[in-house]
Amino acid sequence: MKYIEGGVCAAAGFKASGIFCGIKANSSPNKFDLALIYSEVPCAAAGIFTKNRVKAAPVLLDIETLKSGKAQAIAANSKNANACAPEGMENAKRMAAAAASALGLKASDIIVSSTGVIGQRLNIEAIEKGLPQAAAALSASPAGSDAAANAIMTTDTVKKEFAVELTIGGKTVHIGGIAKGSGMIHPNMGTMLSYITTDCAINAEMLKKALLSANSVSFNRISVDGDTSTNDSCVVLANGLAGNAEISSENADYALFLEAFTAICKDLARSMAADGEGAKHLITCDVKGAKSVEQAEIIGKSVIGSSLTKAAIFGCDANWGRVLAAMGYSGEDFAPEKVNVAFASAAGKVDVCKNGMGLDFDEELAKKILTEKEVIIDITMAEGDAQAVCWGCDLTYDYVKINGDYRT
Amino acid sequence: MKYIEGGVCAAAGFKASGIFCGIKANSSPNKFDLALIYSEVPCAAAGIFTKNRVKAAPVLLDIETLKSGKAQAIAANSKNANACAPEGMENAKRMAAAAASALGLKASDIIVSSTGVIGQRLNIEAIEKGLPQAAAALSASPAGSDAAANAIMTTDTVKKEFAVELTIGGKTVHIGGIAKGSGMIHPNMGTMLSYITTDCAINAEMLKKALLSANSVSFNRISVDGDTSTNDSCVVLANGLAGNAEISSENADYALFLEAFTAICKDLARSMAADGEGAKHLITCDVKGAKSVEQAEIIGKSVIGSSLTKAAIFGCDANWGRVLAAMGYSGEDFAPEKVNVAFASAAGKVDVCKNGMGLDFDEELAKKILTEKEVIIDITMAEGDAQAVCWGCDLTYDYVKINGDYRT
Repeated sequence: MKYIEGGVCAAAGFKASGIFCGIKANSSPNKFDLALIYSEVPCAAAGIFTKNRVKAAPVLLDIETLKSGKAQAIAANSKNANACAPEGMENAKRMAAAAASALGLKASDIIVSSTGVIGQRLNIEAIEKGLPQAAAALSASPAGSDAAANAIMTTDTVKKEFAVELTIGGKTVHIGGIAKGSGMIHPNMGTMLSYITTDCAINAEMLKKALLSANSVSFNRISVDGDTSTNDSCVVLANGLAGNAEISSENADYALFLEAFTAICKDLARSMAADGEGAKHLITCDVKGAKSVEQAEIIGKSVIGSSLTKAAIFGCDANWGRVLAAMGYSGEDFAPEKVNVAFASAAGKVDVCKNGMGLDFDEELAKKILTEKEVIIDITMAEGDAQAVCWGCDLTYDYVKINGDYRT
Repeated sequence: MKYIEGGVCAAAGFKASGIFCGIKANSSPNKFDLALIYSEVPCAAAGIFTKNRVKAAPVLLDIETLKSGKAQAIAANSKNANACAPEGMENAKRMAAAAASALGLKASDIIVSSTGVIGQRLNIEAIEKGLPQAAAALSASPAGSDAAANAIMTTDTVKKEFAVELTIGGKTVHIGGIAKGSGMIHPNMGTMLSYITTDCAINAEMLKKALLSANSVSFNRISVDGDTSTNDSCVVLANGLAGNAEISSENADYALFLEAFTAICKDLARSMAADGEGAKHLITCDVKGAKSVEQAEIIGKSVIGSSLTKAAIFGCDANWGRVLAAMGYSGEDFAPEKVNVAFASAAGKVDVCKNGMGLDFDEELAKKILTEKEVIIDITMAEGDAQAVCWGCDLTYDYVKINGDYRT
């Protein structure tokens, strides 16, 4: 498996585009606001969506659409979430119909997504006018994927785009994805918006299985602020154009596919955590020696979700007591007196807590380690052999600033 | 029932003091660091403590001590939490022994508390030297309670101190309390540090019952940052000197006591939320029309715990979509399409969401309402008749600043 360019256009038969149709203010730094992803042939499709009780209209529509296990295109807008909005479902359906018409497909072939402010009417007229332009702009080149990745950004500062190439059954298979994250990131069986395409031949059932498996160790292991969005969506389209024997069981080919697919999901998830609103640090929490993966994950998510731990990392302060406190309120039972904690980064590693007690450590070295962009909180328990890695980011002035005045 | 001066010294037979013994740096703005609360006669006593799996040594010791249902004094230090600290239990016991010796009591009569940095060895020598001074400084005047309230502050900016007077069984009864809060505030059957004294005659069993009842609608309904501390403790001492017939069942006298006691707990809890680290606003979330009090509370706590909602209130931004989203990820089932939301304060009230959809509202008025120090998020559901009120605060630059460099 090797990393390649191209994002969602890396796989054969996929095209993408991103345009400005007038939902964002013209002056937005990322001014594209309408993305389109299209496969030349029908695809096996699977999706996972927010568990929030309040679901955006496009999420409710997509859940219905994906019952068929098929789709062929994705239309997504940024700046408006079409959640709790007047005429929400009507406008989601109009968006699907307009995309279908622009692409010569049926509305039931279209996945629609929206992301942005909750509670305001979607400017569906701008989208209906924009979709034919977006269809005309479709491109199979990496620039097509770039434009789509740009068009789904809200407060994101970097595009999230990854692709890999691998061999399955003697055929070259590609998997590529784009995502947007930033704030309201605490995915629960989904994530903000993430789209993954592949030319691998795989049926809808196995595709869903792979998505659930990869999601559980990627998108479900990140948190920016503990706020689960109304619009979390992760959709994967597989068009089979790689020509490999269709994967329809958990065979060796599935294992190869799953490994690469999981890698893409982890890359997208990590990049979302690293670009969390206002983030200066990517925090990786590596929990080892847990009695189960579930326990390791619950404890890891409690640590990366702790406002106090996040603020300490922002201040490059090796305040490991907050890590212990966050482990302790996770709800999991464990022996605090057998916990070891270290901080690590490209600048080195420093042990700060052994057997639940503070160690004398080199504060200068700790500061240097925590000044790096990517820092690791390394936790070892003595409960068992299970491990989980979770990703988050620090809590900064900019997070507060961005979210103090988001609507206007 | 009327409010009076005096805090923990309002009740007959109680004295308190606060001194500087050398745990805090001399230059701290609140330089007292050792508090003592003492009753001239033995008391019925009850306490509730953090549910964090990682408990500070004094919490573990107090849980043992309170099994007798009796205590006579409380010694508490700030700046060091004595949690995950070398010789933690040994030092907690030394602290109890030193207080007992200074007061002519037994160690089993003493409740000890610590609050501050986790993981550092407690300077027990300073405390042992300080306790006789603190005992000598004990005073029954309001100044004694003030000094004790001062001595338990860490990043608190205001003292939390309340007292009431009421008549039970023809006798004048007093209930008074002090507390400290600020950060790591997300109490789970306890709160940071809160001490309440009363001269009411009430047995230990009924006192515990009253404490659990009042706690469930006060301390357990606030959150500053979702971080449950290792040291949360709320202890109440009742010395019976008011001379009323001892309360030993849920009779009319108990109802009177409970009402006043609950009021004090709510006052202390609200003041903790209002003085959350860096807070500019006290946020009251009033959830009505829930199917149960539990549901209303879970939804209310989800809203006041939402970083995005908190940041919006900091920005005086009427971003009610974040309120809906936080309700939705609370885990509770409800009909989003029947939810109404309004923002209110001393400056007025504005309806922003009706039946789950955004209303056109006066943005100028909304801004004006949200600029007030105390703002109310008023939520009405259509699930039933239950209600709960929760309190939190906004998320500000100062929260990040305070916690980016807390240890040093």
